Amino acid sequence: MDDLKARSLAMHELHKGKIEVISKVSVSTKEDLSLAYSPGVAEPCLKIKENKDDIYKYTAKGNMVAVISDGSAVLGLGNIGPYAGLPVMEGKCILFKEFAGVDAFPIMLDTQDEEEIIDIIKKISPGFGGINLEDISAPKCVTIERRLKQELDIPVFHDDQHGTAIVTTAAMINACRLSGKKLEDLEVVLSGTGAAGSSIARLLKIVGVKKVYGFNRKGVVTKEKYSNYRFVVKELLDEGILDYPENLETDTLAELLKGKDVFVGVSAKNIVSKEMVQSMNKDPFIFAMANPDPEIDPKLAIEANAFVIGTGRSDYPNQINNVLAFPGLFKGALQSRAENITEEMKLCAAKAIAGIIQDDELNRDYIIPSPFDKRVVEAVSSAVIQEFKKDR
Amino acid sequence: MDDLKARSLAMHELHKGKIEVISKVSVSTKEDLSLAYSPGVAEPCLKIKENKDDIYKYTAKGNMVAVISDGSAVLGLGNIGPYAGLPVMEGKCILFKEFAGVDAFPIMLDTQDEEEIIDIIKKISPGFGGINLEDISAPKCVTIERRLKQELDIPVFHDDQHGTAIVTTAAMINACRLSGKKLEDLEVVLSGTGAAGSSIARLLKIVGVKKVYGFNRKGVVTKEKYSNYRFVVKELLDEGILDYPENLETDTLAELLKGKDVFVGVSAKNIVSKEMVQSMNKDPFIFAMANPDPEIDPKLAIEANAFVIGTGRSDYPNQINNVLAFPGLFKGALQSRAENITEEMKLCAAKAIAGIIQDDELNRDYIIPSPFDKRVVEAVSSAVIQEFKKDR
Repeated sequence: MDDLKARSLAMHELHKGKIEVISKVSVSTKEDLSLAYSPGVAEPCLKIKENKDDIYKYTAKGNMVAVISDGSAVLGLGNIGPYAGLPVMEGKCILFKEFAGVDAFPIMLDTQDEEEIIDIIKKISPGFGGINLEDISAPKCVTIERRLKQELDIPVFHDDQHGTAIVTTAAMINACRLSGKKLEDLEVVLSGTGAAGSSIARLLKIVGVKKVYGFNRKGVVTKEKYSNYRFVVKELLDEGILDYPENLETDTLAELLKGKDVFVGVSAKNIVSKEMVQSMNKDPFIFAMANPDPEIDPKLAIEANAFVIGTGRSDYPNQINNVLAFPGLFKGALQSRAENITEEMKLCAAKAIAGIIQDDELNRDYIIPSPFDKRVVEAVSSAVIQEFKKDR
Repeated sequence: MDDLKARSLAMHELHKGKIEVISKVSVSTKEDLSLAYSPGVAEPCLKIKENKDDIYKYTAKGNMVAVISDGSAVLGLGNIGPYAGLPVMEGKCILFKEFAGVDAFPIMLDTQDEEEIIDIIKKISPGFGGINLEDISAPKCVTIERRLKQELDIPVFHDDQHGTAIVTTAAMINACRLSGKKLEDLEVVLSGTGAAGSSIARLLKIVGVKKVYGFNRKGVVTKEKYSNYRFVVKELLDEGILDYPENLETDTLAELLKGKDVFVGVSAKNIVSKEMVQSMNKDPFIFAMANPDPEIDPKLAIEANAFVIGTGRSDYPNQINNVLAFPGLFKGALQSRAENITEEMKLCAAKAIAGIIQDDELNRDYIIPSPFDKRVVEAVSSAVIQEFKKDR
């Protein structure tokens, strides 16, 4: 077996999982117990009963995120269910804590029914300050997130949808800074119009990109095919988020990419060729995030004169890694006591990530900070808090 | 404000609650991330997908208890709901960890509907090795626990029902040891026939007590009143757990207590007088656990020549404190991977608690170990594990 696989199994077995719950206070004496438990603990209870907001003052709720999954779309493994999905959710939880100091606990759901999932999450939410949905299959994840955002008064965020959008937007901002191109002049081709792709398209439009063309398993996204699309794509068309290419000779990605500035992929491996990149506009940006193998091998993209290339992989420069976004985003949202993570907050997060890199540091292999750059979480959370305060 | 109350509030506010979730592994480097998260984490996922039991090998599930409440019967505060109840559940969680090294996380339910509670707990159970129900009102707590025990394959235990039963049984065992009385000769009066009282009656019958008479708000428990009772009491009568007193002149506690050996109270304050104690058999045992004020002031019971007195209070000797039972009980059940906490395990726990005190240490102010006696958890968990292994 591959050495990394063996070592990962050994590590998980040695520690018996990756999370534990610890006490912040001592309970070694009668005195301790009388404060932390009976009878002293009645006091914070009575305070909260009188003023519901006091729960943020006297409990861990204000810093506690639930990482919730039904295991229906885990990493690249697909529908492996709530038992097999747990190691990934434990992993997500430790990222929250280690990167941003945010407490996070995994909840695995033994149902894949949309309404049941919504109902359960609502009913277990009192002890949580925020909800991070994870690895829930599309398209139900879109509805679940939307409904919970409406029906709960704490932030709800599906990282698989929006994390990539935030980091891709940051990469786009910096690729423009470096190349001299302007966001509003870019013509972007988006391959993959599911939950993640849809979120990317929306955030790009908000940051100022004017043209985003879609491509998916049904080919180039066009008005003619409207009735064949899932609601996620229909909405993009109804709201004018996706634009229609003109005069395409064939219904192919190759044709669509001709003369375009940017390729953004959240789709499948090896669907972009060197020739396609060479047919794009001068100095194209390639963000090929199919996991584990990108839409084009980065080496080929470089040979094809891509200006910058970013992937989801850590073994190439410019890794589009969601961990650049969600820790600081939640940290800021929780500190603000925001009821929602808004599009504006996501945009501010993207700008904060991009802004980590100074003008004189920016280069084609460094348009995205390292996930381990300790300045990122603070920059993102501060930007989110500032955005939250703007309207108050 | 009372000094203890002020200090408890200050403590809760200073720490912002009492629990936090931490990582057992480092995620400081790319290497770390590749083991704890993508791509290495796929390996334990695939193992579990292939063999569901491997979840106990690779995740924290095997040591993770959910402490679940709807806030409908919190301490002595009543139905304060899931927000106001959270400080108590956080407190319970830290007791699990600090006393027995068992990880525990609070889940507050925003519903008080019996079927909804059962359904939600089932559907969030994959990541947990055990369920501790807490502060859920009777009688629905009895049904909820029973249904979950049938429908889940992990231990489910409602501490408010059974914890007191276990510790009271331990106290009874030691009171007999000290006094020379035999369990099978005792005539016990039980005041309070709700969930806790019912559990006490059942365990006493299992440990060998032959006569248990009930008393509740409707008076002495008799066959005549059968149709007026809730199902919890009806079952006790159907199964012959409660016995009927003979020839009572009046339907009062005073009359019932005449000539009896033991008073066990999980009812209301000040319903037992000195005279009543004096009318009991020689060397009566008084276990008066009404909270916060017992059924009789211990000083009065001593003046009335009670042989031993135990209460729920920490400011008197012989505190009947559930923390003597549930940490070791769950530790043993989790380590055994038992699917249920059985009556036999509860009995073994009671005997283990009682057995902590050696013959030459036993005295009327010391028939129950201190909650802080570090030998208790080990003794209880070992006894539970041994009991579990007996049938395999």
